[in-house]
Amino acid sequence: MIRLKCNECDAFAEPLDWRCNACGGSIDIVGLPVFSPDAIHDGDFSLWRYGEMLPVEKHFTLGEGMTPLAPITIDDYTFQAKLEYLNPTGSYKDRGTTTMLNHIASYEVDEVIDNSSGNAGASIAAFASVAGIKARIFVPSDTAVESKKSLIRAFGGTIVESLNPTADVYAEAEHTTYASHAWSPYFVLGQTTVGWETWEQLGRRVPDAIATPVGHGGLFLGFYRGFKALYDAGITDKMPIMIAVQSAGVDPVIQAWEQKLDIPVSITPQHSVADGILVTVPVRGKQILSAIYETNGYAFRVENDAITQAQQRMTSQGIIIEPTSAVTVAALPQIREKIGDDAELVIAFTGNGLKNIGASL
Amino acid sequence: MIRLKCNECDAFAEPLDWRCNACGGSIDIVGLPVFSPDAIHDGDFSLWRYGEMLPVEKHFTLGEGMTPLAPITIDDYTFQAKLEYLNPTGSYKDRGTTTMLNHIASYEVDEVIDNSSGNAGASIAAFASVAGIKARIFVPSDTAVESKKSLIRAFGGTIVESLNPTADVYAEAEHTTYASHAWSPYFVLGQTTVGWETWEQLGRRVPDAIATPVGHGGLFLGFYRGFKALYDAGITDKMPIMIAVQSAGVDPVIQAWEQKLDIPVSITPQHSVADGILVTVPVRGKQILSAIYETNGYAFRVENDAITQAQQRMTSQGIIIEPTSAVTVAALPQIREKIGDDAELVIAFTGNGLKNIGASL
Repeated sequence: MIRLKCNECDAFAEPLDWRCNACGGSIDIVGLPVFSPDAIHDGDFSLWRYGEMLPVEKHFTLGEGMTPLAPITIDDYTFQAKLEYLNPTGSYKDRGTTTMLNHIASYEVDEVIDNSSGNAGASIAAFASVAGIKARIFVPSDTAVESKKSLIRAFGGTIVESLNPTADVYAEAEHTTYASHAWSPYFVLGQTTVGWETWEQLGRRVPDAIATPVGHGGLFLGFYRGFKALYDAGITDKMPIMIAVQSAGVDPVIQAWEQKLDIPVSITPQHSVADGILVTVPVRGKQILSAIYETNGYAFRVENDAITQAQQRMTSQGIIIEPTSAVTVAALPQIREKIGDDAELVIAFTGNGLKNIGASL
Repeated sequence: MIRLKCNECDAFAEPLDWRCNACGGSIDIVGLPVFSPDAIHDGDFSLWRYGEMLPVEKHFTLGEGMTPLAPITIDDYTFQAKLEYLNPTGSYKDRGTTTMLNHIASYEVDEVIDNSSGNAGASIAAFASVAGIKARIFVPSDTAVESKKSLIRAFGGTIVESLNPTADVYAEAEHTTYASHAWSPYFVLGQTTVGWETWEQLGRRVPDAIATPVGHGGLFLGFYRGFKALYDAGITDKMPIMIAVQSAGVDPVIQAWEQKLDIPVSITPQHSVADGILVTVPVRGKQILSAIYETNGYAFRVENDAITQAQQRMTSQGIIIEPTSAVTVAALPQIREKIGDDAELVIAFTGNGLKNIGASL
């Protein structure tokens, strides 16, 4: 039986809750279906091919998921790139958005809110429009970029400028439905499909290692939980080494891992070009660190200059990504030193660089 | 046996020829493998799943193809949208580019040229970089937009500004390899995969009708030839009604169809917001018209205002497309009047609107 349960105090929660009402902790779905290869819909080339494993009724879709997995070679080193930026609105967020909003669409909801000035805001505005649900997106009035606000509006969302979007959206969540890309357990649910796809695209094999940028860790945990579901179903006896990458100055997970702590370190964020992972308190920080420790993984930080160079380098190879996506490439020297050049590494590229084309090219 | 043959005078051509040396006509591949469902590589989720039907050695890939097919509803009318703009460089051109450049990469070629200031130029620059081949892209010095030139450069291409890119590239083609998105038979070959994917995504069914924008007709003929291959293999006894859409003022195919002519009408082009189909002399114009007549199809023109409205409308539904992509939506009233609301219609969206995000949103 599907239920929502608090990760901190084990209290149960209601279907549209975004966090635990008892203690404020993050909630996740328990009682998920066991993964079964026979349950995959072979003729469906979107993430809904795994619909039997997703306890959500599909009301709408933009064909999200089943993004390319392509071999990329730089400096005579080859890794597998999961091109998540080729999702419909230009980022991996679409996986979480579609499961979250299809879940919400099963209830009588005519409006959702979220706080994001970036990929999540665009994704939620777009899918809410498809669902016929209004979306109000809270963005920081001081730092939100005009092009990203324009994109949210073009997708049919309403912008609410705020000096403190997080506090404002938490307050507003008392009165309306908070479709949170950071908190919603149904958002993380959608992210697990990236692990299943990667497994299928590798010929139903589990890679040796996975590296992703980490903000709130939705994509990172998606990979981990996707492979864990395969492991728990007895389909594989192997888990990939999980590697988290953050930018110097916004590295609460990296610092915690270096100090062998169970929860992220409290930090004062500094400037970073990786604007998609400017997260000082990851909602599921404990789960991220646990996944790293359990898989004998790593956590690496990278500098702004290295990120920018990596982004330009990837674009010159046909991979047009946002700076945030490039942190894993910037971390390649550190990754290769630890896992070796023979290990099969999958890197996820999160956001489409075409969004910045006027600004940064 | 695979050979290249002139569509006009039946002369044979050499593997790297871009047109007939005898008469200057367009050339196409003859002796292609018969389509076989058993030959599809099920575990490959790119267009290379049809590799057995593509007489090209795969040297590299960005995971192009297998774009989403998503149901879209506007005004209580539902059609299937093939989201070609979710290919790696943001347009359907990647299908043709990958087969053309993988073919070329089998020969000792260290540089290619093409004339395009838009999606084709970006696609060829990107895939040439992946292939380790230099790309020089000829663009019109008077009209090429800075953002598109920046994208070509970011992908590793070299821009050559020219007052007459077509004449200059034809002259330069005497000395180097012309990788022409308009002429190359291997470019059109890659486009056929869009028909095969659509057939698979519909549950191995042929839709009632296909509508695409038409410039040189690569995508249009790709659909037609893809379905024709299924028909010729005895997999279906049905061909879809082929519908070509052009913008008012740049409508050589529409005028020809209205006058029941076999070749496009000679026109003086006027301003159009659909900048991807500003083609006055389609290379395979005769083949485009033949496909329309053979399938009892249609050819419709649409006005600039209707195109812009259609683009904004689609974006507000999560479909972020270029103006060129929106011509088919602008033509929906004309299409529905002819084929009726019960016919299953597939519309292809060709270019990613994120490329224009700074400019037009």
